[in-house]
Amino acid sequence: MEFNPDKLVPGERYKLLIGCIVPRPIAFVSTISPDGRPNLAPFSFFNGIGSDPMTLLFCPGHRPDIDAEKDTLRNCKPRDEGGTGEFVVNAAIETYQQRVAAAAEPLDYGQSEFDAVGLTRAPSVSVKPPRVAESPWAFECETMQVIRIDPANPDAGNVVIGRVVHVFVRDDIVDERMHVDPEKLRAIGRLGGRGYCTIRDRFEMPRGLGALDESWKVERRE
Amino acid sequence: MEFNPDKLVPGERYKLLIGCIVPRPIAFVSTISPDGRPNLAPFSFFNGIGSDPMTLLFCPGHRPDIDAEKDTLRNCKPRDEGGTGEFVVNAAIETYQQRVAAAAEPLDYGQSEFDAVGLTRAPSVSVKPPRVAESPWAFECETMQVIRIDPANPDAGNVVIGRVVHVFVRDDIVDERMHVDPEKLRAIGRLGGRGYCTIRDRFEMPRGLGALDESWKVERRE
Repeated sequence: MEFNPDKLVPGERYKLLIGCIVPRPIAFVSTISPDGRPNLAPFSFFNGIGSDPMTLLFCPGHRPDIDAEKDTLRNCKPRDEGGTGEFVVNAAIETYQQRVAAAAEPLDYGQSEFDAVGLTRAPSVSVKPPRVAESPWAFECETMQVIRIDPANPDAGNVVIGRVVHVFVRDDIVDERMHVDPEKLRAIGRLGGRGYCTIRDRFEMPRGLGALDESWKVERRE
Repeated sequence: MEFNPDKLVPGERYKLLIGCIVPRPIAFVSTISPDGRPNLAPFSFFNGIGSDPMTLLFCPGHRPDIDAEKDTLRNCKPRDEGGTGEFVVNAAIETYQQRVAAAAEPLDYGQSEFDAVGLTRAPSVSVKPPRVAESPWAFECETMQVIRIDPANPDAGNVVIGRVVHVFVRDDIVDERMHVDPEKLRAIGRLGGRGYCTIRDRFEMPRGLGALDESWKVERRE
């Protein structure tokens, strides 16, 4: 099938994006409102950018039920745009996977998903929003920039770029060379529709033309 | 463990980013140089942005071996910056997973990874770079914007934002409601180090507080 995206409705384009771009990592983002009320929400349009400085991004969409910015975006945008300029990205893992899905519930602005889904706030070191105490890692971030794809169209999407200013990693998932053990992390990823995947079915490949060598074999870890 | 990222070396920060932000989808990006030579390379700092317009992004880093921009970035940046302003994102799937890893080989500028790894060029509909004929989906994109995190530091990373102007999806992986079947797609995702995962270990969860309901159970598909 061949499509001109302009001939599809936005819902169809969205289904193609989330069905084809898989598996997606999940940013479980905690923020606070300027008057101090905590918020927690999952975002699967999320990834790293680079390591010098250490940067990442996520893409909060529009909130169609009340035709407003998502609470997370409202809270994390720069201070001169009315936000706090800070957010924390926490891990989405099997241990509390149902709480991650539950936190996607659109609550009234200022109502805390921490309480609604049963997760614990832990104080951050360098930013005001709390991290999720149950999360094995947390990246405390300062918002560098919010890119609005089409400022005239709230449905067009936004890219929040954050600089990581503090890192928490639980001792049992990382070694002294900063290698994170996927077996111990047990992250979940996002697929299309209501779909999720684990990272339990893993393998390793060398990088570069060596990967084509017939003497080399895919080694499944689990 | 708690870290101030500024006290780590970039390699350590990179390992934390790629070890914690998992699983990452892989953009298998095809471009052509302004004089028409094709290029193909995998990028796992990749995701969708929004569906109105249909947009996505990927983050090409710096090429340390020759201290230059990656060929993909050179090719896809806007015309007024010396590029072609176009790229195609192809799927990374199990069928040709070794060719995806192999295409990360840094070849001389203008040497084609299509030939080096043994994949086939198919003509695109709306842009000049070819798509990968073996790929079950392809998003033909026009570059909207390239964000340089720190223009003074080539190691700082870049965000390429693309608008999808044409979509190819193989009939057998999608239904008429634009739902993509993950079982048929068989995508691979990226973990830290040399690690990859499949999307074979899947489950579904409802969105919102219903996910906490004890009567609801995680249903593994495979």
